[in-house]
Amino acid sequence: MVSKEMVALASKRSVIREIYEYGQQRQLIVGKENVYDFSLGNPSVPAPKEVNLCVKEILDQYSAVEVHGYTVAPGDPSVRETIAHSLNQRFQMDYKKEDIFMTTGAAASLNIVFRALTNPKDEFVTIAPFFPEYQCFVTAQGGTLKVVPADIDTFQINMEALENMITPNTKGIIINSPNNPCGVVYSKETLVELANLLKKKSQEYQHTIYLISDEPYREIVYQGVTVEYVPHIYKDTIVCYSYSKSLSLPGERIGYIAVTKEVEEYDDLMKAIASAARVLGYVNAPSLFQRVAARCCDMTGDISIYEKNRNLLYDGLTKMGYTCVKPGGAFYLFPRALEEDAVSFCEKAKKYDLLLVPGDSFGCPGHVRISYCVDTKTIENALPLFEKLAKEYGI
Amino acid sequence: MVSKEMVALASKRSVIREIYEYGQQRQLIVGKENVYDFSLGNPSVPAPKEVNLCVKEILDQYSAVEVHGYTVAPGDPSVRETIAHSLNQRFQMDYKKEDIFMTTGAAASLNIVFRALTNPKDEFVTIAPFFPEYQCFVTAQGGTLKVVPADIDTFQINMEALENMITPNTKGIIINSPNNPCGVVYSKETLVELANLLKKKSQEYQHTIYLISDEPYREIVYQGVTVEYVPHIYKDTIVCYSYSKSLSLPGERIGYIAVTKEVEEYDDLMKAIASAARVLGYVNAPSLFQRVAARCCDMTGDISIYEKNRNLLYDGLTKMGYTCVKPGGAFYLFPRALEEDAVSFCEKAKKYDLLLVPGDSFGCPGHVRISYCVDTKTIENALPLFEKLAKEYGI
Repeated sequence: MVSKEMVALASKRSVIREIYEYGQQRQLIVGKENVYDFSLGNPSVPAPKEVNLCVKEILDQYSAVEVHGYTVAPGDPSVRETIAHSLNQRFQMDYKKEDIFMTTGAAASLNIVFRALTNPKDEFVTIAPFFPEYQCFVTAQGGTLKVVPADIDTFQINMEALENMITPNTKGIIINSPNNPCGVVYSKETLVELANLLKKKSQEYQHTIYLISDEPYREIVYQGVTVEYVPHIYKDTIVCYSYSKSLSLPGERIGYIAVTKEVEEYDDLMKAIASAARVLGYVNAPSLFQRVAARCCDMTGDISIYEKNRNLLYDGLTKMGYTCVKPGGAFYLFPRALEEDAVSFCEKAKKYDLLLVPGDSFGCPGHVRISYCVDTKTIENALPLFEKLAKEYGI
Repeated sequence: MVSKEMVALASKRSVIREIYEYGQQRQLIVGKENVYDFSLGNPSVPAPKEVNLCVKEILDQYSAVEVHGYTVAPGDPSVRETIAHSLNQRFQMDYKKEDIFMTTGAAASLNIVFRALTNPKDEFVTIAPFFPEYQCFVTAQGGTLKVVPADIDTFQINMEALENMITPNTKGIIINSPNNPCGVVYSKETLVELANLLKKKSQEYQHTIYLISDEPYREIVYQGVTVEYVPHIYKDTIVCYSYSKSLSLPGERIGYIAVTKEVEEYDDLMKAIASAARVLGYVNAPSLFQRVAARCCDMTGDISIYEKNRNLLYDGLTKMGYTCVKPGGAFYLFPRALEEDAVSFCEKAKKYDLLLVPGDSFGCPGHVRISYCVDTKTIENALPLFEKLAKEYGI
């Protein structure tokens, strides 16, 4: 009687949430310190202290009617101007405030963009491993998602497979670099090759294929690695951003969509974005945190903690014999499971209270996601258990 | 190329926004104090001072990771418990925390509910005058909206017209009392009659017709008027609430959906609500303001200001000869235009810099909406102009 589709979706329980809930139960039995929960991508580094200072400052500076009132739908103009300016400074861009549309986080950014772009029969393509919510979002907004199998040796893009998947119905390609779940950052070469392919295919099919760059992890990147600013490489890029990870504000739901004026059909696209935000009920991005984001847009939480965790875990596991592409950013490691069936491997890991997520959820079987946004101590204590687990497999 | 539907929607400009923007321009020419902008429903009363105090308290009490982190999708459990308790105390209900689903404001509540309920071909019915965004939201979530013409003498419900509009495809009825745009509160008699009709029709068609009660103005109600708590009168009611108006927090986007366990298919409905919130990208309601809402859920802004404005405007206009149903709540007056064509009437009013919204936007031609969430002084100064306008019509 209620929506069959929505009830059916609920029965496909989130694997990540199930593991997390198992961990919560398990903690009651063996104690919190003995459960190594690597399931959730919830930032463990606190927001920079400036965030709370800004909140208080803003409350003191503005009247309540002003700070808690509606903003115009794309967001407070001075907020958008500040963010445009910051992007211009950092990435040598030329954004104006009207190119920035403030949103209720990355999930909102993506939904709004999919709704803004999608006509009947439109398809989107993403690259495994990929964030599984893309499937829900694209479908909810009337499109179809196709997935390019992972290049498991590099987690860059298998261009041949991608090329074969592009059809006259392809409206956009979704990329996510630094990547959840594998932490890999696309190289400049990868992006240039991707841009060339999309230009060729756009020409072939006589319509633009948009590149949707989902980049909540853009600022979480480690020594020696550069995250290219994608619009420099492919002009028809729509940037979907969130402050959830960089400022450790995932609960506050604040982000933006950025579109340069060079993007094909800029005017219609911006109109469609505004309409999409409207019909989906995203009246305006939360008003206080719009202002907080503007004031803190050049900051991040203490990334060095994640880098330390990455090094400890990557070095530890590879030394034990695990196979893993070294992540350049985000806070995930995505090693191969020690048997073909990652689900079965994760079950074995559970015996040691190591809670990992099978790569199957991310369109990449045979691997496991380890979220290392945890206390460094958790990793130190988990390493001997990873070693015992490896020994079970004779490694 | 981008979504045709979304671009087309953008071309249908919001009448309210156009009037507001005209007013902003006009202020530059004749001065802010000489423009009587009654177009927007933006609360003019500040949030209770406790709101900002709570924000600061919460930031000081909790760690940043806790307060700005993800909450579970339905919202922080203790927040939901507090809100359930408050509803139980105030309306003699028996909500538990699992019956409350925190949302990013009323627009989100409604979109989530429509998506959760709608199967192909489903229809929803609302009663004119009605909030025009219902049309966008229902359509965006796959349903069709039908509108019962207004009973312009009372703005209660024309039951016969409603009965004729209910079909085997009717999934739900949307009501909004106190009403935007007319400020009328449905009487107990109206609601009982509505409930009886829906019970009869549910039985006739052998499926439940849900009542979606959109009640952001529930607490904005004046002396001598009672807003019934709808689930007492019709058990299959889904309450969609927002703190935008009661706490004057429209920019912060915080509200909830409340469903009693007596509602038909409760389990599936709650699952579908969670799925709908997920696919629409509403990861969780803004985390800090979830906690603020819980701490302030028994408060409101200073309603007496709106009541004073209502009295001044209603008494003033009716004395001049305007015809108007007396509003019992919200902050809107919806008098008849002094000629058949409300659009033309609003154009005439513009000569006096009185900015009113034609009722056509709300499915009720021949009327105008006056939003009196403005300074009392604005109303005092506008009254002589309303009198001049009436004189033009020989009244």
